[in-house]
Amino acid sequence: MKWDQLADETCPIARSLAVIGDRWTLLILRDCFAGASRFEEFAASLRISRPVVAARLATLVEQGLLEKVAYQERPPRHQYRLTRLGRSLQDLMLVLSSWGSRELAGGGSVEHVHTGCGHVFEPVVTCSHCHEPVDVGAVRTRFAPRLAKPAETSLDVTYGRG
Amino acid sequence: MKWDQLADETCPIARSLAVIGDRWTLLILRDCFAGASRFEEFAASLRISRPVVAARLATLVEQGLLEKVAYQERPPRHQYRLTRLGRSLQDLMLVLSSWGSRELAGGGSVEHVHTGCGHVFEPVVTCSHCHEPVDVGAVRTRFAPRLAKPAETSLDVTYGRG
Repeated sequence: MKWDQLADETCPIARSLAVIGDRWTLLILRDCFAGASRFEEFAASLRISRPVVAARLATLVEQGLLEKVAYQERPPRHQYRLTRLGRSLQDLMLVLSSWGSRELAGGGSVEHVHTGCGHVFEPVVTCSHCHEPVDVGAVRTRFAPRLAKPAETSLDVTYGRG
Repeated sequence: MKWDQLADETCPIARSLAVIGDRWTLLILRDCFAGASRFEEFAASLRISRPVVAARLATLVEQGLLEKVAYQERPPRHQYRLTRLGRSLQDLMLVLSSWGSRELAGGGSVEHVHTGCGHVFEPVVTCSHCHEPVDVGAVRTRFAPRLAKPAETSLDVTYGRG
């Protein structure tokens, strides 16, 4: 498997990582969700090499997660906005942020407020069929035939048996 | 910001990426959730350099997501098992897999079955307070003071305004 060919994998997790798995990409997207839109904002937030910031932004535009919009003509200035596809990563951001706050020591944490009800909340992953929370270990995954998998495991496995 | 110092960041997303943000790590964890436990299984699934597989497994053990357990003495053989901390990434795996299946073209997809109700499901992120699904844009995030953020955004921002 080659990192730059993950987009060709059958596994949807591998395909997702082809889009968001490069170093810094998820932190750029985090900043977008937090309202950043200009190159200088991303550069100031991440404090990494400017060519890397530019490369990641260009990839996110190419992949359709961000759109590059002119907001000034003289001198020309652009900003980056989350597209519908980019905004659809909100679930991922919430789960990643919640996991880090809950499970990893150090640093501070972040509070999420649900504007629907006005309360601080944790994201709870529930089942679209029965609407109950999905407990650890309560998932079986059925793979498509081409999915990279250990040869001796069955096609019908249980998540979280570890 | 340096990639190998992300664990010191206040932002919980950055801290999460210090643990799971290296190339291939999430695919190794995917394979663990799918039942893989032996070095050769990971190597066969990922088809990447064996030292990289070994390095990622060692890091996951060090970070407490996997435990290394001897299952045979002569010759010595070990397997890797998800710990409680590792299994707590089930939400992330579900959301990442669902996003890739739904949003990214190509490849096949994966079906998740909720063993609680027996039905194929999509993970739905809901609010722990009101139990309603959290719509795109319906989140405000309150940052801790040290969080990397664009200087001119307020401390109280809206997710998904993009």
